[in-house]
Formats: sequence, C-alpha cells, structure tokens
Amino acid sequence: MAALTELLQSFDAEREGAELYQLVSDLYPICRSITGNGLRESLRLIQRTAPLSLHEVPSGTPVFDWVVPNEWNIRDAWIKNNRGEKVVDFHRSNLHVISYSTPVRQSMSLAELRPHLITLPDTPDWIPYRTSYYQETWGFCLNYRQYERLRDETYEVCIDSTLGPGHLTYGELRIPGGTDAEVLISAHSCHPSLANDNLSGMAVAAVLAQHLSGMSLRYSYRFLWIPGTIGAITWLALHEAELHKIKHGLVLSCLGDPGRFTYKRSRRGNAEIDRVAAHILAHSAREFHLLEFTPLGYDERQYCSPGINLPMGCLMRTPNGVYPQYHTSADDLSLVNSRSLAESLNTILHIIRFLEGNQRYVNLKPKCEPQLGQRGLYRQLGGTKNATAEEAMLWVLNLSDGEQSLLDIAIRSGLLFATLRAAAENLLEAGLLDEADRRRQ
Amino acid sequence: MAALTELLQSFDAEREGAELYQLVSDLYPICRSITGNGLRESLRLIQRTAPLSLHEVPSGTPVFDWVVPNEWNIRDAWIKNNRGEKVVDFHRSNLHVISYSTPVRQSMSLAELRPHLITLPDTPDWIPYRTSYYQETWGFCLNYRQYERLRDETYEVCIDSTLGPGHLTYGELRIPGGTDAEVLISAHSCHPSLANDNLSGMAVAAVLAQHLSGMSLRYSYRFLWIPGTIGAITWLALHEAELHKIKHGLVLSCLGDPGRFTYKRSRRGNAEIDRVAAHILAHSAREFHLLEFTPLGYDERQYCSPGINLPMGCLMRTPNGVYPQYHTSADDLSLVNSRSLAESLNTILHIIRFLEGNQRYVNLKPKCEPQLGQRGLYRQLGGTKNATAEEAMLWVLNLSDGEQSLLDIAIRSGLLFATLRAAAENLLEAGLLDEADRRRQ
Amino acid sequence: MAALTELLQSFDAEREGAELYQLVSDLYPICRSITGNGLRESLRLIQRTAPLSLHEVPSGTPVFDWVVPNEWNIRDAWIKNNRGEKVVDFHRSNLHVISYSTPVRQSMSLAELRPHLITLPDTPDWIPYRTSYYQETWGFCLNYRQYERLRDETYEVCIDSTLGPGHLTYGELRIPGGTDAEVLISAHSCHPSLANDNLSGMAVAAVLAQHLSGMSLRYSYRFLWIPGTIGAITWLALHEAELHKIKHGLVLSCLGDPGRFTYKRSRRGNAEIDRVAAHILAHSAREFHLLEFTPLGYDERQYCSPGINLPMGCLMRTPNGVYPQYHTSADDLSLVNSRSLAESLNTILHIIRFLEGNQRYVNLKPKCEPQLGQRGLYRQLGGTKNATAEEAMLWVLNLSDGEQSLLDIAIRSGLLFATLRAAAENLLEAGLLDEADRRRQ
Repeated sequence: MAALTELLQSFDAEREGAELYQLVSDLYPICRSITGNGLRESLRLIQRTAPLSLHEVPSGTPVFDWVVPNEWNIRDAWIKNNRGEKVVDFHRSNLHVISYSTPVRQSMSLAELRPHLITLPDTPDWIPYRTSYYQETWGFCLNYRQYERLRDETYEVCIDSTLGPGHLTYGELRIPGGTDAEVLISAHSCHPSLANDNLSGMAVAAVLAQHLSGMSLRYSYRFLWIPGTIGAITWLALHEAELHKIKHGLVLSCLGDPGRFTYKRSRRGNAEIDRVAAHILAHSAREFHLLEFTPLGYDERQYCSPGINLPMGCLMRTPNGVYPQYHTSADDLSLVNSRSLAESLNTILHIIRFLEGNQRYVNLKPKCEPQLGQRGLYRQLGGTKNATAEEAMLWVLNLSDGEQSLLDIAIRSGLLFATLRAAAENLLEAGLLDEADRRRQ
Repeated sequence: MAALTELLQSFDAEREGAELYQLVSDLYPICRSITGNGLRESLRLIQRTAPLSLHEVPSGTPVFDWVVPNEWNIRDAWIKNNRGEKVVDFHRSNLHVISYSTPVRQSMSLAELRPHLITLPDTPDWIPYRTSYYQETWGFCLNYRQYERLRDETYEVCIDSTLGPGHLTYGELRIPGGTDAEVLISAHSCHPSLANDNLSGMAVAAVLAQHLSGMSLRYSYRFLWIPGTIGAITWLALHEAELHKIKHGLVLSCLGDPGRFTYKRSRRGNAEIDRVAAHILAHSAREFHLLEFTPLGYDERQYCSPGINLPMGCLMRTPNGVYPQYHTSADDLSLVNSRSLAESLNTILHIIRFLEGNQRYVNLKPKCEPQLGQRGLYRQLGGTKNATAEEAMLWVLNLSDGEQSLLDIAIRSGLLFATLRAAAENLLEAGLLDEADRRRQ
Repeated sequence: MAALTELLQSFDAEREGAELYQLVSDLYPICRSITGNGLRESLRLIQRTAPLSLHEVPSGTPVFDWVVPNEWNIRDAWIKNNRGEKVVDFHRSNLHVISYSTPVRQSMSLAELRPHLITLPDTPDWIPYRTSYYQETWGFCLNYRQYERLRDETYEVCIDSTLGPGHLTYGELRIPGGTDAEVLISAHSCHPSLANDNLSGMAVAAVLAQHLSGMSLRYSYRFLWIPGTIGAITWLALHEAELHKIKHGLVLSCLGDPGRFTYKRSRRGNAEIDRVAAHILAHSAREFHLLEFTPLGYDERQYCSPGINLPMGCLMRTPNGVYPQYHTSADDLSLVNSRSLAESLNTILHIIRFLEGNQRYVNLKPKCEPQLGQRGLYRQLGGTKNATAEEAMLWVLNLSDGEQSLLDIAIRSGLLFATLRAAAENLLEAGLLDEADRRRQ
C-alpha cells in the first residue's frame, strides 16, 4: 500500500506515457498470430520491461473442448501483376494476409483471385484484419482503392507460410505477495499490427508488472500475455486446480485511444473487482461507461464461462467493435497516444491500490464507542463539530463487523477511501480493530 | 411448440374473431346464475367448441368455510300495472330479476314495491345487475326511466322461480401434455346477459381449448368454466390433493372490449406466469397495464388465497369496475367486438407458447466456450462481428446453469425469445446442452 | 390502544404546548453538566411531571471502555477588570464557563487570559457552549463583542468549582405494559441553558411519560433522562443483560424549533420503528426528512454501536449542527415554541399508537376466502363495489401469514392503518384471525 500510494503521488504521466508508447511502437511492426515466431518475438521484447517466462504448449494438446492448433509462421506474401509489380505486399502491412493462410504459389486470373480478396468498401483506405485459424484457407486483405485498381490480368500470388505441428506460446509472470490469494491480469497478444487492440493492453500490463515487482503487496499478482480465446482456454485448462486462488482479475485491452473508460463487469456482476472498479471510475471526475457482463468480447468470455466463473472484469477505453478503426489498419500508432496510455495505467494502479487496501476489520470494542480521547484520537474540547478524521474513525468502528469492507464503509459514509484507510490504520495501531482475515486463520 | 408457432404464424384474426363473437352472441340470451339450468345450457353450448365435461356437486356439500347452496331456477318474472301491462318483463332482459330471488306472486302498492326495486339514477337507461345468493330475498332491477314512469297504483308482481336442493354445475376439460405439470385456465360462468364480464372469458377459453386439443404440448392444460367464488371454492376444495400439479394459471375475464390489456399479478408477484405475461405485454408494442395482486377481483381471490396460493394471474382488457358499463345492461353485445376478442386469444397463445418454450438448460461444456466452429455453428472467418444467432448461442451457453430460463436469458441479453429458443435447439442437437428437467428426473 | 386513540382524538395542542413550554422554561436557568447538582435538580423538577427515580453511579465505576468521571459542581465564576467590574459573569449565563472547568482564582494579564477565552467571531452576539470532560482545563466562553472590548489590563479570574469523586446521576421511569417487551425513550439531559438541544427532548419525554402512565398498553415503556454519551454508556453497561427486551426505541432531541421533522433511522435501517416512523411522517401531509443512520449525533451512537445495535432511531425537528444557533446561547427560549413542542409530542404519540397496534395475525381459514356474509361482515347484495371496510378485511385475511404486520398490509393495500386495525378487530372477534404472538407462546 505505502509504495503504491507513493507511486501514485509521484506518478509522472509524461514519463510513463512515453515508455508505454515506445513499447507499443516497438511491438507494432511484428506479425503476431495465435502461435508462431511473431508471438515469441513480442514476448521477448516485453521481457525487457517485465521478466515474464515464455511457455510452450505442443500442438495437439487437448484443452477442454479444444485442441491446441498447429503452429503458423510466415516469411513473405505478395501479389504481383503481369509487369512484376507487387500490388499487395506483406512487408508493407502484415494485415495484408489472412492470419493462418496456408502456403500458396500460383498464377491466376483476377476472377480466380477475387474470392481470396477481402476489402472494406465503406472505408476504402483501410485494410481489414481477418483470421482463419480453424478452417484451412488462404487470402489477402487490402484496401478498397487497391482492389479497385486491379485490372483483368494474370497475377502471381505468393504466401510463403508454414502451418504444422509446433507450439502455442504464452508469457506468464507471477509477482508474489503477502498471501497466495491472487489478482490475475490478462492481455491477449495475438493480433498483428493493431495498436489499440491489443498492443495497448500488452504494454500497460508490462509496465504495471514492472511497477509492482519488488513492492510489498497483500496479494500475489499473476500476469498473462496470451493468444486470445485459445490461449486463455489453454492456460485455464492447464491450471484448473489453481484457479481458486484468483480473487480478482482484469482483462486489459483498448487502453490507448482517447475515449472515456469502459468497465465491463464480471459474470458475477457484483464481485469486489466490479464494485471497486465502478467506485474508482465514479470518483474520477471523468465520464465513463459501466457495462453489464455479456458473453461477447475478449477473454472474459473464457474466464467468465459458467464452469470457470472467475471474478474478472474487463477494462477498456472505447470498447472493441465500437470505434470504427477496430480490426482494420486504421487501428495504428496514430489512434493511440501516450497520455491515454499513462492515464489507463494510472487508473489500474488506483484500482489495485484500492483492492490492496480494501480490508475488512473487526471492532474489538463493539459495545458503545471506545473512548478515543484518552487514546489521543479525538478532540478534547467538546461542543464543536467532528473533524473528518474523527468521523472516519466513528464510521470504521461502527461498521467493522468483519463482513463490511472499507469500500462498503466508503459507500455508506460518503468519505474518501484514503480517509477511511488512514482512520483504520490509527484504530489498528490503538488496538481497537483487527483485520478480519487474520482472525479467520 | 412447433404447432403453436405455426398457429400463431397463420393466425387468422378475422376468422377467430368471428367465431369468438358468435359464441359470445349465442351465450348472451341465456339466464345464468351460480347454479341452475341456464348454467347447464351454457356449458352444453360450449361443448360444441371444446369437449368439456359437466360436473354436478350436490347442494349442502361442505367446501372449506362454505356450503354448496341450493339450486335456483327461473321461468318467468314480471310486474304488471293495473291495466295488466308488463312494466318490467324478465323476457326482455334477464337482468331485471335479482339473481336468486325467491318466488313471489302478489299484488301490492308502489310503496310496498319500492324497497324491491333497484335502479341506477346516474345512468338512467341502464339496468343494474344484482345478486343475493346467501340472503333470501326477491327484487327487480330496472332502468331509472322505467322507474320514474311508475305511478301510484296497484301492481301485480310475479317471480316464477324455484330455490331448493339441487346441484352446482361446472365444466372442466383437461388436455393432456407431455408431463403431469399443469396450466390452469379459469373463466367464471355465472353471469346472465353480460357480454364482456364474463362471456368474453368463457368464449376465449373455449376457442383456446379447441386450438390446444390434439397439439403436442409440454404441459397439460386444465380448463374450468365455473360459477364465480363458490364455484372456484368448490373446485379447489374437491381437488386440494392435486393442486401441486398446477405450475401456472390464468383467470380470464373482460377480454372483449377495445381497452388495452391489463395483467394482474399472482399473489406471489414474481411467478413465472407473472414474468412471462409482463414480458409478452412489454414486447407487444402496445400500451398495457400491470397490476399488483389485490385480494379483490375475480376468482384469483380464491386461487391466490393464502392457504392455496397458486401461481395464477388474471388477464383482462379493461378491468372489472373500471369501465362504466360493468355490471349493468350496457355490458352488452355492443361493448365487445370480434377484433378485441381475437387479439385477446392471440395474446394468450403467445403467453402459452412462451411458457411451453421457457426451458431451463444445463451447459454440458461449461468450462470455457465449446468450439462452435468445428460443429458448424460459428462463422469460420475471424475478425468480423458476431451474427445474432452466434450471440444467442453464446448467451444460452453462458447462462444455462439449470436455474435460469430462456426468459431470464432474454431479459439479460435483450435478444428475442424466438432467437434464443432457436439457438438452444441448435445447441441441444449438437449435444452441448441438456434440459434441466430431464436431468432432475 | 383505545386510550391512546382517545388521547389523540381529544389532543389539546394548546394545553399540551403550554405545559411543555413551561417545563422547558423551568429547566432553562439550571446549570447542568454530565454530573453534579444541576443535573439532580433538573431531574427532581421533572419528577413533578413524571415520577422518575434518580440513580447515582459512583465515580470510577468501569463502564465498557470508559470510567464514570469525577463529579463537577460550580457555584460561581467571573472575570473582573482592574476596576472590579465583572466583565464576564457566570450568573448572567451558565454558558460562560467551559463545563468541567477546574477551580481558578488568579490575577493575570489579558495575554495570559486569552488562551482561556473562546468566542464565535462570525456570530459576535452569541456565547459558544464548550465542554472539557476528560482533559482537565479551565476557560470562559463569551460573545465576540465582549471579547473585543477587553483592554490590556490586569484581570482577576475566579472559577469557584469542585471536581472530585462523586456520582453520575440519571433519571429512569418504567411504565409496565401487557408484556415485558419494551420501548425505550431516551433524552440526554446534560446541557446547561440550551433550550432546543436538549430541554425540548427532556420535556417531551416527561409529558409523554405522564400520558402513558396508567394506560393499558401492549408494550412496557422505559424512559431515560441521562447525560449524553457517558450516561448512555453507563446505563447500557449496567443493564446489558436486559437489553434484549428492548424491541423499539427513540432518542429525542431538538423537538421545539419550528423546522420540519427529521427521523434518523437506526443502524439496522429497516427496523419496525424505522418503518413506522417513516410511514407516520409520510402520511402526515407535512414535509419531513428521513436520514440514514450515521455514527454521529446523539446517543444513538451508543444504542446503535455494533455490539449493542438496538432498533432505535432518533426523532428531531432541525437536527443538531444544522441550525446556526446549535451549541450557542442563541439556542434559548425564543428558539422553541409551544406549538412545535406540542406537535412533536403528538407525532410521537402517533408513532407509539402505531407500534402498539402493529400486530401480526394468522388467518385461521386460509384456504379460499371465509364466508364473511354469514358472519354479518359483508354486504349481502352482490354486484356492487366493495366497501372500504370489506376491502380491508380481504387484505388482512389475504396477507395475515404471521409474518406481515398491519404496517406491511397498509403499505401493500394503500389503506389507512386505522381502517385495517378495525378490520382486524372484527375478524379477531369473528374467530377468523389470531394474533401471531399468542400462537408462538
């Protein structure tokens, strides 16, 4: 707590934002997918910021209703016209190839090529992002203006990819805290050159992990950088026995755009993380959105599936599918900015500080008020109004029944969490409170 | 379900309305009461539409706090002035006689007659409807204009009725379904020439029964055409041991006027029938009223008495006591119309289809999402928005814990019941869901 | 109930108000504190109205986390200038001395005196009220105009007080009722010449006790006139074993000003007293405030501490700290008026009558409606609208399951409590209901 409070008090938004934006920029050119070397390269790049470990799960491993797929790698891809000019070139944008495209090297007419071309006629300058992980096919995505310029000639088509047994890679980092109880932070890491979805989440998770490392914390923190859907499913299947340790969690994505914050509740709807995130946003003096859980979106689909049902929400700015650039080449480095990234990190740090400090206490002198004055905790001259610090102590004493947390007391009293937390610390020191967790042991 | 859906898709409002209006018209002239031949004749007339059975319960039978009363029959009734003219004539309106009037044949002055005459001075053209089942008396109801014309002369008064041991008659029809669990539909059938209250309810119940007969249904359906209050009490007292089979129920009345629909909740307040009826009306794109339960009204007074407490609501258009013609001769064939009657039937069919389809399921692959793509249930090209059918499958999978019904999922997701139902059927077929009821057996 | 109803029907606001105002006026000049002869004198004065007993608890008695303090008495106090004129004189206002000031007799310069002087520069005509019960000190309170006139000269200062072992005094009166279950009425009685806070509460409690004495009541009533905080703590510590008998309670204060009523809920938030008080105020056709519980305020701080947690709310008009005259010499006899005092008493009598009558019943004929007509409780001529008395009987029968009280039925039905109470009495007499309490014995 103290280290977190200090970090927040001296939070240097400019420096944090610059570091986050640099990490997003460094990751941007790499062609990631749900498996393969681009994913490995990205995780190794993040290791410079946060000491995650790379884990490799062999293709063919059964994971719940799924099987880990073959590994996909790509070196090059292009379409040449009959003058030998590359009219589509993977090296100009890795979105040009449908992810998991099977290898191709072939000449064909425009008519034959067309079924393999995907465009967005409504936004003619943008290249769409498409995948075909589980049905073998190949194809190119291109902007509509490129597409319109294609003439009826013979094209040479090349996708220099491999698809075969290999591994699914994910990154994991556990920062041990005072207890085994864990907070899980998860960022999907399988998208190629898309900046807001998902590089912003990957980068914020990395810098967050960097900050938490070495701090003295109540909870242990587990970070995952995993391929979307199949990565979350794989990790959950391999760690089912340990899931009970996860007390709170956040899926991070879309954290770099200038939109307002959006918190999507866990399937439980009123988990502590849901209430804390809602409280932090409500007290931020900024506009925000709260969404109820839906089984669509990011990996909360898996973490909040009915047989897993972890208390995990999803923090975003503008949500997936809501901003027009979503899943197109326009989700590029110009869509995200260092100020938004830093603000996102700051908000998550506030949420974590609140979780860390959101204790439940037991009043050890519950019959009438204890005599605070004799303990130097109360004004001695009667007849004047209570100071806020005194009010806070009276609230904490009155409601600390071992069930109500400081969040509950903050909501009931209208007092700030920090004020209540300070009151609780004074009362603890005076021997008037105990931590509920400690008493349960 | 399929047959019901088909019926609703090809619902011929004009034909249904005409049949309903004809049935109301045929029943209209008969002088019904809580016992007697008029009631029997009405039930036999309904048999042409729905094959109900007539049941006879002897006078004197104890039924909870009550006793089945004597049977009342009437042949004729009139008041003649001293010129022998019938100034009041039962054959012109059967409302002219207070129901259960004891026999009279007597000459008397206007002063002697007056205490036996009931009028409505505020609506001087309307004859009131009055009864005296449990206190022996006799009397005439007449419109105020008739009453004003009565001169101070000698009148001859005749009520040619009988009141003595006999039977209370009711009609019952059970349409067996896939399970013993029952839906109870009840219409009081004791009012004489009153069209909206209660002939509309009797007719809608009859045509509804006709439609459900022979359909393959999940629930069994029990229809009652019974005298109000004493009939419901009698039936409940005689069938107490079987009441646990009734899972949902509706009291039907006042369904022929052009007013908006009114659903009055069961005493439980949030029973499945209450939630389904409210949902259907809310999604009807028409204005409607929802009423909380009150212990006044129709036979829900008995069905929802605290020791019975069945999950039964009451569906009406303009409720009893709210429209000015209520319990007067103006509740005649001009107050009801075929369009309203058909719309009422249609709404009840929608409620029944919803009840039939409102299953609870168990997700058989609850840990993470099952791989829908491999089962041909999901688009293969990633990166695009989910289709509604896919969304519906994800919602059904995520919330099918054996407790939440499709109605709950419809409310949470904002998706249409039909969409969710189709999704559930696809998932059932793919072996990803099971019916909760089947698993409980 | 009957006596209470009669009292309310013949309530003579002018006479009651005059008596209350006279009692406040008689108590006003006395210098009270949390111990001492002023407190004793005040309680003896109240004995003329309500036969309370004086209880004496020795200094040094441990009471929960506290110890009963030394007794303080004061005879005189003044500040004389160098011409021998009393510039501050305790006999002009007993607020001039900080309560519990230690004895002083000394000459000193203005500079030496200043740290012992308290003023209110923003309201320069008012003398503040201050106490220092638990830290030994001495001081004077004076209005800012007096303070400004003090010149730089030598002053003679005298506080002729004693502070040493003695007793804490409180007044108690128990009015026995039909059961051991108790209603606790508590008024703090430790403030010197302050009229609204707390003489109004002391006086209303006294006249209320006078009225309840000798009435035949369902509950027993316990009245406490106690020093604030330490008095409540002392009484609770000495009576811990009997607290379970207290079913409802009210702290009374600030009941003489012309402001609207304020009811502050108990810590439980939805106790019967909370619901009854809210219902009475909501049906008063006057504006009012409802406050959630906070652990600040009057002795509800102790009664509603987590280890005591009695169902006690606090009834006030303008609350403590909200009116500007609070804890100053301006809370004098001109701030309170006989009309407000009488209205406060009347409101509390309404609350008590409601509590007395707020029975839970069990319907002895819960299967269908019982036949009210045969018992002379129901109109015999069917077809007309129910009378309100009949409606009330149907509501009471339908909801009397032993759990729901007449208050619950009043809220559900929209009928007046008195109407429902009359209905319940008719049904009890007819043998259709029983009292839930009687059945539990």
